Amino acid sequence: MTDFMKLENIGEFGLIEKIAKGTKTDRSVIKGIGDDAAVLEWTKDKYLLATADMLIEGRHFKRGASPEKIGWKALCCGVSDIAAMGGEPRWAVVSCGLPKGLAVQYADRIYSGLKKAAGRFGVNIVGGDTNASDKIILDVTVLGEVKKEDLVLRSGARTGDFIFVTGELGGSIRGKHLDFTPRLKESRILVKNFKINSMIDLSDGLSSDLNHILEQSGVGAIVYDYLIPISPHLNPLPSGERKYRDISSPSPRRGEGRGEGESIHHALSDGEDFELLFTMSKKEGFKLLKAREKLFDIPVTRIGTITGKKFGVKIVDIFGRKRELTPRGFKHF
Amino acid sequence: MTDFMKLENIGEFGLIEKIAKGTKTDRSVIKGIGDDAAVLEWTKDKYLLATADMLIEGRHFKRGASPEKIGWKALCCGVSDIAAMGGEPRWAVVSCGLPKGLAVQYADRIYSGLKKAAGRFGVNIVGGDTNASDKIILDVTVLGEVKKEDLVLRSGARTGDFIFVTGELGGSIRGKHLDFTPRLKESRILVKNFKINSMIDLSDGLSSDLNHILEQSGVGAIVYDYLIPISPHLNPLPSGERKYRDISSPSPRRGEGRGEGESIHHALSDGEDFELLFTMSKKEGFKLLKAREKLFDIPVTRIGTITGKKFGVKIVDIFGRKRELTPRGFKHF
Repeated sequence: MTDFMKLENIGEFGLIEKIAKGTKTDRSVIKGIGDDAAVLEWTKDKYLLATADMLIEGRHFKRGASPEKIGWKALCCGVSDIAAMGGEPRWAVVSCGLPKGLAVQYADRIYSGLKKAAGRFGVNIVGGDTNASDKIILDVTVLGEVKKEDLVLRSGARTGDFIFVTGELGGSIRGKHLDFTPRLKESRILVKNFKINSMIDLSDGLSSDLNHILEQSGVGAIVYDYLIPISPHLNPLPSGERKYRDISSPSPRRGEGRGEGESIHHALSDGEDFELLFTMSKKEGFKLLKAREKLFDIPVTRIGTITGKKFGVKIVDIFGRKRELTPRGFKHF
Repeated sequence: MTDFMKLENIGEFGLIEKIAKGTKTDRSVIKGIGDDAAVLEWTKDKYLLATADMLIEGRHFKRGASPEKIGWKALCCGVSDIAAMGGEPRWAVVSCGLPKGLAVQYADRIYSGLKKAAGRFGVNIVGGDTNASDKIILDVTVLGEVKKEDLVLRSGARTGDFIFVTGELGGSIRGKHLDFTPRLKESRILVKNFKINSMIDLSDGLSSDLNHILEQSGVGAIVYDYLIPISPHLNPLPSGERKYRDISSPSPRRGEGRGEGESIHHALSDGEDFELLFTMSKKEGFKLLKAREKLFDIPVTRIGTITGKKFGVKIVDIFGRKRELTPRGFKHF
């Protein structure tokens, strides 16, 4: 039978598309499936945000991993999603599956990681569900709020926008993915000081997540590979040296070709960097480039420009050679 | 080492107690861990409700089960929780773990069950997370709202309250647990027409869930075993015959001793009946007894009375013999 298909044949996005397709929503749903968080009608000035992230032992972490970090990550994924909408997290509901024979102290340590993250980011853990299961499973729904004027969707990128990214990319697979810091502080600064046109958090990998913005905004992009901030986890450099580069005019400088094909590949396709990728008008972009050292403790780097849709998605190397940037990131199925 | 404990040693409620203990919440949290749903500050007139339920293959259903029913149940558990607070469900966030090799059509059928339940109970599915996993896992967070004056907690039972239950109990294990109807309609009628003092949905079993109300309200109870409505799944009787009994004065009538020790045991301890257990003052209780046939399509039965805490929790048989009613229900660990 040719119509027998497995989930791995259609992939995660194929499945999400199928789910979204037949899902009817009423007027209380400003934005449903397809952004970092759902946007729901709340008060005159605010929207409610809701997002869920499930972590499964053997898929997202090994049992040997630090239980505090597992708990930390389970909550921080949702905090990152709320930040990517321009919002602030408020409440979390935590469901877990835990083996019957698991040491109570191990479960305690998972919850202590959850509570640590909750305390750090102003989240109230308000409920959940506990179940016996063979593998450790954590699913955290984070609810947040966003002032209507602060809301940033994936769909707002405009031709000519500068593309920015926070922090440094790649290398999450070497352990960073379990104790990352969601960029809530940076998101607050961004929405308070600038007009952000579109934003997403990097969970699947730069090439894949950029593609979500482009598809939903109906635009293309050009990315300069030599501007992408590479994590020292991949390619150690003296600290500080790469913190900021002058990229208001993105032309490569002598010696910047770092022969880093491997690193760039990771930076483009490693999942779970949990940095923010966002776009803003050229004017706002220059404002940000001027102010960033004063405003942020971490690098905030321009890596490209939004183009018309027909241009497609291209990545340029230091010699000006363009190639197609195909979405390649973490595959769930 | 005597301090090595496994989760199965402390049990589900031991774990929940541990989780709740170190969890700090701010003033936006009216009721956190420990009721059917969390109660959160929302608007001037309404609270936001949030609840999560996780279903795991092999624990809550077998892979051979109807996928539509799995989806239906995954959403209806949360609807039942919202109903038990006196509220109305609005939105749901659905996280799933699905095997890579699963037929796409099987996944479709799970989601079609979810969507059917969502349509039936006025819920918008607004987001979620999809993951690969060996076992099928569904975790659904349902958000709802409740008018402040309609909110019903577990903690409001008062000495002298009549204890009521909707529907018929027991037998969920024979399949009913997968396609139950959450008692949302009945909850709406109850909160609109009566003052309900306390309410819970029967997910762990009558004896266990009643105990939650008693503990949180600081009261005791007497339950009449011959008044408990037994599901025909356990003990088939001509339909209609047992729909209502006159129990305004709960004295056993001739011929009502049904020799149903086995059935009563199931009715008291089978989990997942998803009926509503609630208490109201004697005055409101008599009002309900008069109006119930007109208001409800299903039995609404008085099964006992709330007593002072010192009395404990007792169950009485037709000969007036009392015994302790010990919480015995579904054990997660």
